[in-house]
Amino acid sequence: MRQNSAVFDLDTWSEQQLASVEKALSLWISPQAPAGLGEAMRYAVLDGGKRLRPLLVLAAREAVAGLTPDAALDEAALRAACAVELIHAYSLVHDDMPCMDNDVLRRGKPTVHVQFGEAQALLAGDALQALAFELLTSDASAIDDHVQARLCRLLAASAGHAGMAGGQAIDLASVGMRLDEAQLRQMHRLKTGALLEASVMMGAACGSPNAQARDGLQRYGQALGLAFQVVDDILDVTADSATLGKTAGKDAANDKPTYVSLLGLASAQAYARELLDQAMSALHASQLTQTHALSQLAQRVVNRNT
Amino acid sequence: MRQNSAVFDLDTWSEQQLASVEKALSLWISPQAPAGLGEAMRYAVLDGGKRLRPLLVLAAREAVAGLTPDAALDEAALRAACAVELIHAYSLVHDDMPCMDNDVLRRGKPTVHVQFGEAQALLAGDALQALAFELLTSDASAIDDHVQARLCRLLAASAGHAGMAGGQAIDLASVGMRLDEAQLRQMHRLKTGALLEASVMMGAACGSPNAQARDGLQRYGQALGLAFQVVDDILDVTADSATLGKTAGKDAANDKPTYVSLLGLASAQAYARELLDQAMSALHASQLTQTHALSQLAQRVVNRNT
Repeated sequence: MRQNSAVFDLDTWSEQQLASVEKALSLWISPQAPAGLGEAMRYAVLDGGKRLRPLLVLAAREAVAGLTPDAALDEAALRAACAVELIHAYSLVHDDMPCMDNDVLRRGKPTVHVQFGEAQALLAGDALQALAFELLTSDASAIDDHVQARLCRLLAASAGHAGMAGGQAIDLASVGMRLDEAQLRQMHRLKTGALLEASVMMGAACGSPNAQARDGLQRYGQALGLAFQVVDDILDVTADSATLGKTAGKDAANDKPTYVSLLGLASAQAYARELLDQAMSALHASQLTQTHALSQLAQRVVNRNT
Repeated sequence: MRQNSAVFDLDTWSEQQLASVEKALSLWISPQAPAGLGEAMRYAVLDGGKRLRPLLVLAAREAVAGLTPDAALDEAALRAACAVELIHAYSLVHDDMPCMDNDVLRRGKPTVHVQFGEAQALLAGDALQALAFELLTSDASAIDDHVQARLCRLLAASAGHAGMAGGQAIDLASVGMRLDEAQLRQMHRLKTGALLEASVMMGAACGSPNAQARDGLQRYGQALGLAFQVVDDILDVTADSATLGKTAGKDAANDKPTYVSLLGLASAQAYARELLDQAMSALHASQLTQTHALSQLAQRVVNRNT
């Protein structure tokens, strides 16, 4: 898996990593869950999405793994990669529901509630959240209890009231309001940033980074999380629905505050580049060497067009 | 805390235990969660409910604790007691929503979505689920990692697709259908039984029961879980809304299969008593001695009128 920087290619690396992730997700989200629930859960997760969060977990694991391979920690990283994706997927299912964003298109397909009904979408989201924690603590794994507990802790904190769900609540309350930059940043740190940062830190928890490395990775994750959202706001204005695979222009339509509405398009683009610089500096400060994947993932986040 | 059977009084015991549980819940569900989310979460959990699941956790912990007190395991049991209640509370919030049961009354108060809006109710439920896992794995606790991982595993499995959420999906799909007794039992084993059984087993995990004790407790939890649901079905027919603190008669109104519709009222009542006998036998077979609380809780479940 290790590649030196001269030949490291993110696409090849991602393809290898995602082959494992997709296989594991398909195995672990049982189609046998009762009464169509398994089908709705699989629809929500499989065959779609850029899998940024799983890639961040695996890239961070690679950065901290050192030279000693450890099968149990590799499995922990794979389970963590799937768990963060399940949390992300559940949040999209619930976020798309009529009482939230009322969106009908996601990843180019009808959203879960359009396909399966609102009640099933609600349950599928709930069950995906539970499954994330089940994966992290499965009896079937050989993962050290300390790592299991640590992964659960990071994931739960990033998903809950002081993370993603809290950010969504601010988002709800902010419709039609004018937020200043500090308030907007706080909303996005929670809503999107917390889970992206947790992805990096969960990968790090599948190794034994020293304080300097951990601190660098955390600052990388924070800068990347914010950059992701700034670019999301930019794309909502500059891209079309077909390219995005979801409804474009919906922030303005919903009168939601964004980095573009706050700073203007050009300044938002400059801010995204500045955050990329911050992420790269933090990575450098970590003094880790196997950071090619993390480094190129940050560039991909900022330079993406979907 | 230990009391001999001659003087054991469930009301006194429950009052002592719940004083700790209520205090902990109020402490751990932060009112500071952003944008009204904390308020909705607290409304959903505090000041209401019989707290059967927390009491089962604490009663099972007491049964397996033996003679050596252990502050860390007492804390684990308290955290587990609160965590199962958070899962239960989130399931009620989501279950009451318009796309599910569309209920406006719960514990004698307007339901969360009536009080705070549907979007906030959805988020509050999501955040309560995450908080349950956060409580179990908090950094602030001195609980052994092995116990933390075990508690998460039991809770996640009982809440997810092979537990509560799966049961809800069967429930959704069963409206207007005729289920046979095996199908009805399966639905309720998942929907209500799994979390009640998990409550008992999480209490047991805060100790070191031998195989016989663990097996007895598990069978106790299963019988109690089913008895709870049979009695619920009976009360839906025999009690009024004011006594229940929720809408009575809604199973029939929603054309949902129940033990009463399947067996008739008298047979359902006989079945509840039979399940109580099974629970008591299982407790006896566990060969544990400090089972007064578990024993009386089972009797209370079957003999309750709300």
